[in-house]
Parts: sequence; structure tokens; C-alpha cells
Amino acid sequence: MNPVIIDCDPGHDDALALLLAAGDPRLRLLGVTTVAGNQTLEKTTRNALRILALAGVSGVPVAAGCDRPLVGELSVAEDIHGTSGLDGPDLDIPVAGVTGEHAVELMRRLISESGEPVTLIATGPLTNVALFLRTHEGLKSRVNRIVFMGGSTERGNTTPYGEFNIVTDPEAADIVLRSGLPITMIGLNVTHQALATDEIIAEFAGLGTRLGAVCAELMTFFASTYRRVFGFAHPPVHDPIAVAAVIDPSIITTVAVPVSVELTGTFTRGATVVDLHHRSGRTPNADVAISLNVDAFWQLLLTAVRRLPIGRR
Amino acid sequence: MNPVIIDCDPGHDDALALLLAAGDPRLRLLGVTTVAGNQTLEKTTRNALRILALAGVSGVPVAAGCDRPLVGELSVAEDIHGTSGLDGPDLDIPVAGVTGEHAVELMRRLISESGEPVTLIATGPLTNVALFLRTHEGLKSRVNRIVFMGGSTERGNTTPYGEFNIVTDPEAADIVLRSGLPITMIGLNVTHQALATDEIIAEFAGLGTRLGAVCAELMTFFASTYRRVFGFAHPPVHDPIAVAAVIDPSIITTVAVPVSVELTGTFTRGATVVDLHHRSGRTPNADVAISLNVDAFWQLLLTAVRRLPIGRR
Amino acid sequence: MNPVIIDCDPGHDDALALLLAAGDPRLRLLGVTTVAGNQTLEKTTRNALRILALAGVSGVPVAAGCDRPLVGELSVAEDIHGTSGLDGPDLDIPVAGVTGEHAVELMRRLISESGEPVTLIATGPLTNVALFLRTHEGLKSRVNRIVFMGGSTERGNTTPYGEFNIVTDPEAADIVLRSGLPITMIGLNVTHQALATDEIIAEFAGLGTRLGAVCAELMTFFASTYRRVFGFAHPPVHDPIAVAAVIDPSIITTVAVPVSVELTGTFTRGATVVDLHHRSGRTPNADVAISLNVDAFWQLLLTAVRRLPIGRR
Amino acid sequence: MNPVIIDCDPGHDDALALLLAAGDPRLRLLGVTTVAGNQTLEKTTRNALRILALAGVSGVPVAAGCDRPLVGELSVAEDIHGTSGLDGPDLDIPVAGVTGEHAVELMRRLISESGEPVTLIATGPLTNVALFLRTHEGLKSRVNRIVFMGGSTERGNTTPYGEFNIVTDPEAADIVLRSGLPITMIGLNVTHQALATDEIIAEFAGLGTRLGAVCAELMTFFASTYRRVFGFAHPPVHDPIAVAAVIDPSIITTVAVPVSVELTGTFTRGATVVDLHHRSGRTPNADVAISLNVDAFWQLLLTAVRRLPIGRR
Repeated sequence: MNPVIIDCDPGHDDALALLLAAGDPRLRLLGVTTVAGNQTLEKTTRNALRILALAGVSGVPVAAGCDRPLVGELSVAEDIHGTSGLDGPDLDIPVAGVTGEHAVELMRRLISESGEPVTLIATGPLTNVALFLRTHEGLKSRVNRIVFMGGSTERGNTTPYGEFNIVTDPEAADIVLRSGLPITMIGLNVTHQALATDEIIAEFAGLGTRLGAVCAELMTFFASTYRRVFGFAHPPVHDPIAVAAVIDPSIITTVAVPVSVELTGTFTRGATVVDLHHRSGRTPNADVAISLNVDAFWQLLLTAVRRLPIGRR
Repeated sequence: MNPVIIDCDPGHDDALALLLAAGDPRLRLLGVTTVAGNQTLEKTTRNALRILALAGVSGVPVAAGCDRPLVGELSVAEDIHGTSGLDGPDLDIPVAGVTGEHAVELMRRLISESGEPVTLIATGPLTNVALFLRTHEGLKSRVNRIVFMGGSTERGNTTPYGEFNIVTDPEAADIVLRSGLPITMIGLNVTHQALATDEIIAEFAGLGTRLGAVCAELMTFFASTYRRVFGFAHPPVHDPIAVAAVIDPSIITTVAVPVSVELTGTFTRGATVVDLHHRSGRTPNADVAISLNVDAFWQLLLTAVRRLPIGRR
Repeated sequence: MNPVIIDCDPGHDDALALLLAAGDPRLRLLGVTTVAGNQTLEKTTRNALRILALAGVSGVPVAAGCDRPLVGELSVAEDIHGTSGLDGPDLDIPVAGVTGEHAVELMRRLISESGEPVTLIATGPLTNVALFLRTHEGLKSRVNRIVFMGGSTERGNTTPYGEFNIVTDPEAADIVLRSGLPITMIGLNVTHQALATDEIIAEFAGLGTRLGAVCAELMTFFASTYRRVFGFAHPPVHDPIAVAAVIDPSIITTVAVPVSVELTGTFTRGATVVDLHHRSGRTPNADVAISLNVDAFWQLLLTAVRRLPIGRR
Repeated sequence: MNPVIIDCDPGHDDALALLLAAGDPRLRLLGVTTVAGNQTLEKTTRNALRILALAGVSGVPVAAGCDRPLVGELSVAEDIHGTSGLDGPDLDIPVAGVTGEHAVELMRRLISESGEPVTLIATGPLTNVALFLRTHEGLKSRVNRIVFMGGSTERGNTTPYGEFNIVTDPEAADIVLRSGLPITMIGLNVTHQALATDEIIAEFAGLGTRLGAVCAELMTFFASTYRRVFGFAHPPVHDPIAVAAVIDPSIITTVAVPVSVELTGTFTRGATVVDLHHRSGRTPNADVAISLNVDAFWQLLLTAVRRLPIGRR
């Protein structure tokens, strides 16, 4: 089984990413680390614990990491994810605690102890991942690949050319993208294809489980904010695609291209500058997803939610 | 008739823009000014004179303007337009001379003398237009509108987020976009729909005139460079759309949105930052084209080329 | 006699610069152009007219130029120069009018008509000078030299590394410094040596003329704002040093060094980056003043004020 | 005794800083961490070990940290410090090894284990310190103060407004300066007063010890590069002033002012923007040294070198 660590900031779509990672038999979820992003660190950490409890996942350590970006101030996405960071379903359930370690320390420990190279899946700002890479360079050889949801080859969502995760911590993204490790970027250009239509939401609701209902409620809330803020008919479900691409890489197609992070623009700070036409002469440093098998993706997610212990009850 | 001045840097598509402006009966072409961009000022000026001569246009004054951007160095698009800036057809014909005035002075004179407000159509870097606006603010009220080909709401062509005309002189574009005048932006997001397919090229060749043949040769050369540099099957014909939008505004649809020019990015300098979702809170300062009636556009251009005096021979 | 045009934004020290230029027999003051800076264009223009009237200068044309910088917004120095831009003395006197031309047009006319090359002395933001250079490149050969007060080799005054004139219009300064013309920069590093001590002010008051009294009142007001804002014991009198350096170049020593203008910093936009140690490898583009003969400077200014027609009454 | 950790990149003046920290009885040197800067990490680490061995210091753990800045590429100061980073004296002596931990981990361990709050003294780029602060925020309360050599209130040395340590890793400096901890900045504006004159060098040589001779040789080499690169008659000895300021704070005077790091300038990236006149309205975040008791500083350093075990032999 493919050992993974998920670094996240739940967040509605992060929550679905956690469920996919927990429910698919091809992944071994070694641990979960949290970061400030969609909401404050306190809230994203509590949300991660809630989702794992809801899914009946136990024994997976959770550690909180950075409460703000490397440089600059945190600006959360309350207009998209609500006050709790996971508004919509009632998630007032008993949860386990965090390990007490910093996220970077948990990454270090899990990667050191793993028999096999570990894949890091990041669905929030890359602050923790960047700090891990720079503080524990000796462990880089034990990282199989970093797959992150973030950026775009086209327009952004937080600014015209900036996607939320990268805009939140551009320097962290720069550190990750220049690490020399194998990197897969799952940007808005593909995640905007994975729309939670009414039919999709109905399929989750139709699973007949508490977990299915919660998934439907999460997507329904997400639909309401995407409609109000962006005028989308149906909301894109970004983060689980990064998990899906680890489970089954054939679900996406990628191109190996140079990706730079704009660190200095007045209006474009945090843009991922993807040189699809190789005009810059820079060396490719990431495999950038450019298409998605949408149906296969939803099947993966539905199957995982159906499989989860509590999902079966 | 709608009085217009065309400021351009021919350039294959600028050449077609000049032909459209000269050949459509709804426009009165008061003058042509040239700017460095696709090629050096000397070459773009000679090319403008050649196209006007070829089209049998006389009595339209031509003035050369700025030989480089306001800030920074000129970098021409020789990979796209060739050594002459208009490679492809044989254009070795006798030409008229320039007026000897600077482009800004010709703009001042023509606009001062015009009975009606004048529309400025810019198909190159906005250096001349910006200098005119800042040096002759008292004449702003006699400018009806500025319609420019440049920028993009999506990806660019010179850099991942930067279009050639704006990347070449970002400060000039900033001055124009903050002038307070009515502005229409015709960006790559629409011009990439106006592809010179084999059928289109055949229609121009089929006109049976010297001018039709030259148009076909221009597009054929343009196709070869777009194929090599960008992998396009057919080349987009950008600049005449700006002229078409003045002749018949219904040919495009626009949205009134805030557009900023990125002046400071490491990788994004010259990007047009178009706030389609009004997330910045800034006041709309431009009407940005977001769709194009492709068939109507080609009909306009074909009809104009057919109508031109030499076209009839 | 050395023909000069003064482009200014009076401003207390600009006023003294005008008096020096009008009163010294070695200069022929061809014209005065005004720019927004220390105060709005309307106020700096009125102030220029007042000072010329007060000094009994007639026949020198005055033209108003740009009312704001090329890029960005105007921010005046009301904390330093007061509401009128020339607070302190009572200057409610009849004044002549402006020519009605734009400053750039007056520069063009005077330089075209001058038998000898003209020296441009700029004591405000370089907006007008930059526009003139870019719109009338053919007249560059008739510009002898540009001497400007602005910038610093050390700290600034408006920001830690930015001096007011350059911070107000960095792009204009960049255009001037990259024009290829001979440039002399008179920065804060030397102007902060020309302090209007009590003894100096007393000397002007002791001239026993209306003009001497006005000079003393201007410096007294300037002293009050420099004390409050910067904690200076005595105020520096910046602008007339640029005029003095044209009258008698031996009054300063200069070094030929590369000077760049920072256009993109978050905290340093508008800094003049003076490469005194030639570490950048760039070609020198300005003669930067690094020392000043303070006594000789004050003698020049006192003598000029004493000589002026109204000064004699 | 005042417990300190020194984070350094020896470097000639770093070497003297280590000797001062090891030789003064008022400090307890808990550990030494190294960072890439004046030379590569490998070289700065070996140099730190050599200096400690030479000084007869044992039992002080040494750990290597980051081999490059957080963002951007490393550019070493070989023109100033030579190929080895410590050119000049023959330092081919047996050395102890490093602990094997990363510098950040050694900081964490020493600070956790210390009975008293620890002062961090940084004499190189702030990469390690920044990573420690962001990865171990819970230990901030156990850091007494951070004293760093770097930056300037005036001109820089690597660029006109940038000092080497800060220019090398501006983002790290930004993280440190925004950490909320008490910070003392020892910039070029004071270190350029501590010049190793011939008399000073003779005093070290005159100690009659191997260590005194090495100090004299280090300063003699440093003099040769400062003369060639900057035209200095005598070289400034920067880094030990940061140690001296911890031993005896009265050796400097400081002002509490806002200090920002320029992260985005074209020519000014890495400048420390020190708002001495409080014009920015920002809250003071550092105590910035503005004067130095030069004689007292040299006495501290001479006394420490005289006291060191091997110094006595």
C-alpha cells in the first residue's frame, strides 16, 4: 500500500480529500497535518479531527503546524468555507486529540519510520511542507513525490491569476517547487472540471449513510458560496483530486513544464506561472495536470465514502 | 462617418487592421501613427506605408512615434513577424513618405482639427497613445473612445500571463487604462477565436486581386510562425478585431470590469489583471471583450479587402 | 550667457532657486515650467508666477505642465510646504499669466528657438522633463545638460531611502536617467549640507529689501516644518544648489557613476540606487554631486537676491 | 552567566565573534550553528570548528544548518573572505566533529534544556533562526532576545542599500523582524566605525600568542579585500560587535524604530528599511544600534582573545 501523509486546512473539499484517503484501500494514511489557510489553524485542526472521527478513522496521528504563512499575514477564506471552516453539516461529535508535536516534527517522524518512501499530499497552503523540506533536507530521499492542489495554468480564484493556497503562502510554494523533488500540481484548470452537480450530490445523499449525508451537506453548502461569490452553477471539488491522482495516476494527464511562483507582483503575487509553451527556457520542475477523467474521479470518491467503516453502518 | 486614428506596429495582423480601416465605408481614417513593437520603429513605419500604398490609400497622413517603450528596453517579435516585421508577401512597391511630425503631434493636430470626437484604435504597444494623453490632457474630451488590441483575461502569449503589446510597454498601458476615457480592450481571450483557417485563407486568395493574394500570403506566413512557436493549427488574427469592434460594436460582447496592469512582477510584468468577478472592489475602467462573432468578423474583413480600390483591379 | 529653463514645483526652496536663476547674470532664464509635486499644479504654478512678480522678472514665459506623475497618484508635501505650497510670507501681489501652452510645448518651443544648447534645471518631480524627452527626441541634441535636484546617495526624506521628487514620479526619473544626455544629480547627500542657519537667515533679512525679507520668511517657515517633521535644527535649502551648480560647476564635486531608480520596491520605490563602488558593472549615466562648497553657495544666492531689481528698491 | 547560541557563517569577522563569545566570562556559549553565507555551508562549518579548536574550546556542540536561503540562490562572498571563507592564516589543525543534528534541531534542544532564557546571536544570514522560530513557536518564550549583525540605516555593502547577510536571505530576516521577539540590529552604520587599523592589528599581534597572531592575520587579509573592493583604508570588523552588545549593552546606543525588509525591489531587495523619523506609522519592532563605543569594543575583544586557554600558552 502506498504510504501518504496529508497536509490540509479543512475546508469542505479538504474534508472530502481526507475521506478519500481514509477510504481507499490503495493508500496507507500515515498521518494528517494541519495548516492555517481556509480558516485559522485552530479551526482547520478541529475540522480534520472531526472528519476523521466521523469516518471512524482511529490510529492516524494528527499534528497542527503553522498558524500563518512564512511571509505576510494570514487571510482566511471565510466567504467560501464559513465561520467554522466547515459550515453546513452538524459535526458536533467527540474527537480524538492531536499528538502535541508540530506538523513538521510529525512529518519527520513518520517519514523516518516508514519502510517505504512516502508521498506528501498537500491540499492547503504549503507552509508546513516547505518548512519540513528546508529543516530536514536529509529526509528528502525518503519522499516519493509531493502532490499538491493549488495554482492554475489559467485564471485563479482569489485574485485574477492567483489561486488561494498559493496566494496564501507564495514563498512556501516557491520552496516546494524548487526542491528538486518530483512534484505534481493539481490546479484550478482541472479542478474546475470536477463540479458537484445536483446528480453528484444526490448520489452521495443516496448512499444512505451518515457519512454520505454529510458529504452531500458539505457540497450543498459549498455550492451556495460558489454561486454567490463566483456565479458558478455548481461548485468545483478541488482537493480530493490530489488524493485521487495518487491512488490512480491515470485519472489525470500531466505535462512536465517549468512552474514559477510570482513572489513580487502588485496584483499577481502568488500566481503560478506555468510555461506551457517552454518559452522561458527554464527546466521543467513539475508535472502539471492538464486534464481529468471526471467520471472516474467521482467513482473513486463515492466508492471510498461507501467503504468507510461508519459509511457502512 | 466615424473618424478614427490607427496607432500600429505592422506586423501581419496590424496590416489586416489597416486594410479593414481603409476599406470599410463606415470609418474615416484620419491618420496612421506607428510605434516600435513587432519590429523596430523604422520597419513598422515602412510597413504601414507599404500596406497603405498597396491598398491604394492616399491622402492619409502617416507619422512615426516612439522607438521604444516608456520604461525598459524594446524586444521585438521577430520570431512571429520575421525580419521585416511583415515577412511573406513581396511588398517592394513605391511608398509615400511620413509627415515628419511625431506621432503624438499628428494625433494632436488631427484630433484638434476634427469636427467630431475621434476614436483611437491601437494595435501595438500603447506608448504613443499614453504620451498623447499625458501631454495633451486638454484634448481628452475630443477623444470618443480608445479601442486597443492587447492583454488577455486568460493566458498571455509573450509570457504565461502577458500579451505582447502590454508586456512591451506596461506603463503606457497603465496610463491609458487609468485615463478615465472610455476604453475597450480586445484581448487574446477573443482574438484566439479568430483563426485563419485554410478555408479563410482560401477565401482571400479567391478574391482574385493582388490585395487578396497578399492577405493570403500574410496569413500563410503567420500560420507558419504560430505553428512553430505555439503549436497552433491556425493562426489567430488579432488586430483587425479592434477595428471591427469600432465599425460594428455588436460583433463583440463586453463586460465593464476593473483592469489593472501588473507593473512589478518578476514573471508577470505586463499582465492585464482583469477582475471579472469584481473581487477587488475597484471601479470598472474598461469594457473588456469576452466573446466574438467570428463569422461576422471575417465577413467584415473580406468585404473591406474586396472593396479597396486596388482590390478591385 | 548660459540659457536655461527651470522646471519646478514651488515650494520654498524652488522659490529660492527661481530667484537665483533670475538674479545671477551668468544665466539667461528662457522660461519656467511647473509641475505638480510640493503642491498641486495650480498652486505650484501660481507660486512660480508670484515669485517672478516679486522679483520684478518680466518677459519670462511660464507654462503649466503635468498635474500628476506618469504612473500612480500625486501625494503633495503639505506637511513641509504648507497649504499654499509657499506658506510663510505674504505674497498677495499681482501676477502675470501663463502662456497657455503645456510645459512640454514651451520646452519644445524655447529649445527649438534657442541659438545655443539649453540646460534644463529641474527642481521638482521629473514628469514634464520625461515627457519632453520622449515626445521630442529630435531635440535632444539641443539640450546641453539636465541638472536636477532629487534623490540621494544615502538616506531619503520621504521614505527611508526615497527623496520626495523621485518618489513622486519614479518612472519619469528613470526616463531622464536613461536618456543618454549629460545628467547632474544634486541629491540630499549634498543639499543637507546647505542649512539655513539663524546667521544665514539674518543675512537675508539684513539685505534691507522686500525680497530679502521674503527670503528670510520663507526659510523661517521651512525651518519650522523641518524641525517638526525631521527634528532638524536648521532646514536644508535643496533646490537652489541645482541652479548654483549650473552657474558655477566648481561649487560641487561630482563622480560619474551608475544611478538606477527603484521602480518596484514595496518600501523603496523611488529610491535612487547610486553605485558608488561600481559593483553592478553598469555604465555610469550621471554625474552625482558628492560635496558642496557651502559658503560659496550662500554667497551666490545672497548676491543674486541683492542684485534683483526689486531687491534694489 | 548569560547563555547564548551563536549562529554564524565564518568568515573573518564571524571568527572574531566566536573568539569573543568563547573568551568573555560573562557569556555561556551553549552551542554554535552554521549557515551558508560568506561561503558554502561545508566551508563555514569547517571554519567554525577550526576557530573553536584553535581557541581550545571543547564541549560546545556545533551543528550545520541550511545550505542556502529560504528563497533564491546562494551567492557567497568569496571576493571578501577568499576561497576557504577564512583565507589568511594557516588553520590546518585537527578539529572536532559536528553533532549530526540540523542547526534548527540543536537550537531546539539547547533552548529546551536551558534553565534560563537564551540569547540568539546571529552573524550570518538569518535562515536557520527563521526556520527555528517558525517550526518551534512554542519555544519563543524561552528566547531572551535576538541580536544580529546585518542591515544598515544608511548604505549597504553588497548593493547600494543592501547589506550582505540580509541580501542573502531577505525572507528569513523578515520572519525574524516580524517575530515579535526583542531584536537588536547591529548594522553597517555602526560596524563601519570598528575599523581594524594598523595599531589595532599590531595590538593583537603583540599579544604574543598563536591566537593573537591568527587574529592579526585574519584582519590583515580582511584589510586587503576591503581595500580592493571598497577602497577602505582599514577593514570594518562587523560581527563581534553583536557579541559585544550582549556582553555589555552599554557599548552601543540604540533606538526603537520600525524596520522592514525590502523583499521585492529590482535594485533594493534585501535593504533594511529603518524608519528613523517614524514617518511610516508602523510600530517599532527592533532596537537599532546607532552609535558604538569603539575603544570599549576593541578592549573587550582584546581581553577575550588574551584570556582564551590557547591564548595563554
